[in-house]
Amino acid sequence: MTQDKQIQSISEFYYPNEPTGPAMKTSLPGPENQKALAKLSKVFDARAAYFVVDYFKSNGNYIVDVDGNTYLDVYAQIASIALGYNNPALIEAVKSDKNINTIVNRPALGNFPPNDYADTLSEGLLAGAPQGLDKVWLDLSGSGANEQAYKAAFMYKRGQERGYNTPFSEEELSTTMANAKPGSPDLSILSFESAFHGRLFGSLSTTRSKPIHKLDIPAFDWPKAPFPRLQYPLEKFEKENAEEEARCLAEVERLLKTWPSPVAAVIVEPVQSEGGDNHASPDFFHKLQKITNENKALFIVDEVQTGVGATGKLWAHEHWNLPTPPDMVTFSKKAQAAGYFYGNPEILPNLPYRQFNTWCGDTSKAIVAGSIFQEVLKHDLVARTARVGDYLYGKLEELSAKFPTNIANLRGKNKGTFVAWDMESPAVRDNFLKTCRENGLNIGGCGPQSVRLRPALTFEEKHVDIFLSIVDKVLSL
Amino acid sequence: MTQDKQIQSISEFYYPNEPTGPAMKTSLPGPENQKALAKLSKVFDARAAYFVVDYFKSNGNYIVDVDGNTYLDVYAQIASIALGYNNPALIEAVKSDKNINTIVNRPALGNFPPNDYADTLSEGLLAGAPQGLDKVWLDLSGSGANEQAYKAAFMYKRGQERGYNTPFSEEELSTTMANAKPGSPDLSILSFESAFHGRLFGSLSTTRSKPIHKLDIPAFDWPKAPFPRLQYPLEKFEKENAEEEARCLAEVERLLKTWPSPVAAVIVEPVQSEGGDNHASPDFFHKLQKITNENKALFIVDEVQTGVGATGKLWAHEHWNLPTPPDMVTFSKKAQAAGYFYGNPEILPNLPYRQFNTWCGDTSKAIVAGSIFQEVLKHDLVARTARVGDYLYGKLEELSAKFPTNIANLRGKNKGTFVAWDMESPAVRDNFLKTCRENGLNIGGCGPQSVRLRPALTFEEKHVDIFLSIVDKVLSL
Repeated sequence: MTQDKQIQSISEFYYPNEPTGPAMKTSLPGPENQKALAKLSKVFDARAAYFVVDYFKSNGNYIVDVDGNTYLDVYAQIASIALGYNNPALIEAVKSDKNINTIVNRPALGNFPPNDYADTLSEGLLAGAPQGLDKVWLDLSGSGANEQAYKAAFMYKRGQERGYNTPFSEEELSTTMANAKPGSPDLSILSFESAFHGRLFGSLSTTRSKPIHKLDIPAFDWPKAPFPRLQYPLEKFEKENAEEEARCLAEVERLLKTWPSPVAAVIVEPVQSEGGDNHASPDFFHKLQKITNENKALFIVDEVQTGVGATGKLWAHEHWNLPTPPDMVTFSKKAQAAGYFYGNPEILPNLPYRQFNTWCGDTSKAIVAGSIFQEVLKHDLVARTARVGDYLYGKLEELSAKFPTNIANLRGKNKGTFVAWDMESPAVRDNFLKTCRENGLNIGGCGPQSVRLRPALTFEEKHVDIFLSIVDKVLSL
Repeated sequence: MTQDKQIQSISEFYYPNEPTGPAMKTSLPGPENQKALAKLSKVFDARAAYFVVDYFKSNGNYIVDVDGNTYLDVYAQIASIALGYNNPALIEAVKSDKNINTIVNRPALGNFPPNDYADTLSEGLLAGAPQGLDKVWLDLSGSGANEQAYKAAFMYKRGQERGYNTPFSEEELSTTMANAKPGSPDLSILSFESAFHGRLFGSLSTTRSKPIHKLDIPAFDWPKAPFPRLQYPLEKFEKENAEEEARCLAEVERLLKTWPSPVAAVIVEPVQSEGGDNHASPDFFHKLQKITNENKALFIVDEVQTGVGATGKLWAHEHWNLPTPPDMVTFSKKAQAAGYFYGNPEILPNLPYRQFNTWCGDTSKAIVAGSIFQEVLKHDLVARTARVGDYLYGKLEELSAKFPTNIANLRGKNKGTFVAWDMESPAVRDNFLKTCRENGLNIGGCGPQSVRLRPALTFEEKHVDIFLSIVDKVLSL
């Protein structure tokens, strides 16, 4: 994989007409935006809307609202746009006869797969699979991807206990119909404090970011371990941070050995995103994998937000150089398709129809994902993002000297554009995000008072400069 | 809504080149099929594959495999194809700039909705909404749709108890982060024996069809009521069936009043499909709704399989003429988009970000769904299906006299093409399905020994005749 040196600027290559900067035509919310939201509110819960978008006018790294306001976008649909808006290569793939055909005739893939589905997977999604993980099971969302991985982990664990091909007992067959053990066993998934793994019933039981996600919803009694709260700058707090990681790992081990319902898998984000962009060291993840596997649990890495290049590696867990691959890696968002990669053939259940549903994924999304991975690989967008990220981080570090309380705990060094920092308070952060939008920068928060950067892989140095000038201006107000 | 009398045959209108009948070129599995499956098995769990499909050659009511074998399809991707294969109106919609644009720039709909999303919903999906339910929340699959409905029911119930706008207590805010009550309350969903509502953790806890769906997966301790096992023909067993329904309703009422974790909602399929095409009378559903609501639970009708016309009504629950609409109606499959319809504005949680996720649905699927509903309404495919279903049922009734043990308990009278029957044994049924495929009829089973018919809404009398001749032939072998 060598960078295509012919193309100096990938954003200019894809987007010859990309705006040269933000352009605000109205104060916010603009009049058209207000009209559109009033209309939308009649049929949709629009209370969380930042603004209403004209996706036809949006271009590359810029998003345009219904009032014609043009924003530089470093949030990118909550980290979900890989290649910028209206990417020409993606438009080609989506317009293809193959894609149109599979949307119109959406297959029940498990029973009636299309003749080209093997190629769709091999040449597409699997071309971007993490090293050592050559198989994939698809779902439709990040939450669903994690839930399918949990199901695979539960079936794997019981299979290990009873023997992969040992038939179910009569007692298992009858008790599961009453949701009772041993057929429906008391097993668990261990996740971390501040983790976000989705909002369906299993995934929500492992989500520990904010009460608003969880209130009033019944949950499984599953274990939660502390996630390291590192102190920054890392160089200054090496000893403290190592102790903090050791404390968390000790608690993981204690929970794995003592939690009443045996743990089938540990799930962890390479960078806790929704929870506040919390990082840990490669050493932490090495030891976590080791402890997990030693205690007969599978090690699931949730790359729903970190996957597909933004951290300066195709998959963020590549930063760790693990001795063996994770057991499963889940993905969604920038991939546009969702699911989990795995390597061990026994993670596939012993019988068909155990991991199954009507659609078993979506060929159209697999086609889109394949096209995204092909573009990422062809133009080496990962290395480009690593380079841009270094530039971005360096500039932010400089700016943090000017605004030490509002660019605090800067993190994501050598992690591409996956950069975040803390502000003085939740109120200051919320106001900052709002004022940035008023100045033509669409930007998101995470955790109680952090700012997270999640631009597309087409974000370049020139965009960094514009971004910085707005941040500087807003913080100087 | 009046039937377009200009169009005599909707299949000829859509599909001028539809095959005139099945055409088998090879024995099964054919050589190309075997090659394709071997290739596919390297990257996908193909153990449940019936055959590998050429979706480009498939046309209208006919599906074509990679060996060029042409089957009349009365299974339609597990009841998921509404308008036949390669429907020209759907191709137009999918090729539209609007659809291409929203796939390429998939929005995080809750935060950044597109300017035309209100119209997409109003003119599309909501044009086909059940009477009295004018709002919709989208998900991505039938399982997900049910889970989102369960979440809405749990939030609604706690909102009723504490007051819709009453703030959460400190105790709720802290306990939910530990998956503990009162923040994560012990509440439940009541479902029925033999029900199928999906395979995610919450939906799987309400699925009670077959052990293979549930084994080894932890489940919530939620109540299960018996579903009526009616005796056929209905005319002959009026008294027995009324008693059976009363017995089941009494058990529902007992569970609602006594189950340790209060029931937030009862979910029921109008016809239990995966579980064996089990029907109940309108009177049963009237009383079920009454008992449910009287016991402060919401009444959710799962129309994932029955919705969008196949029963001879747009929504199967229209057959019941309920005094008030169900609280929520879930859908997926033939709609291609998934979610739940609702009417009561308080089913929307009191705060944003409670019912929320990155994508909040998929505009592209909403566009496809809208186009399907528009076609169904424009060409009155529901009334057409009712007519074809009556013809189908009558002919099958005649044939059952010839094969009383293998067309037994025929059911679905006046329910469009949503027809099923029982066979002698599971082995006889499985062999029947296989032999039908060998004779050019793609057909599916349900329950332990039933056959279910799930053709598209373009299935007409001439297709019925071909279908019957194959069934007659295979049963005569």
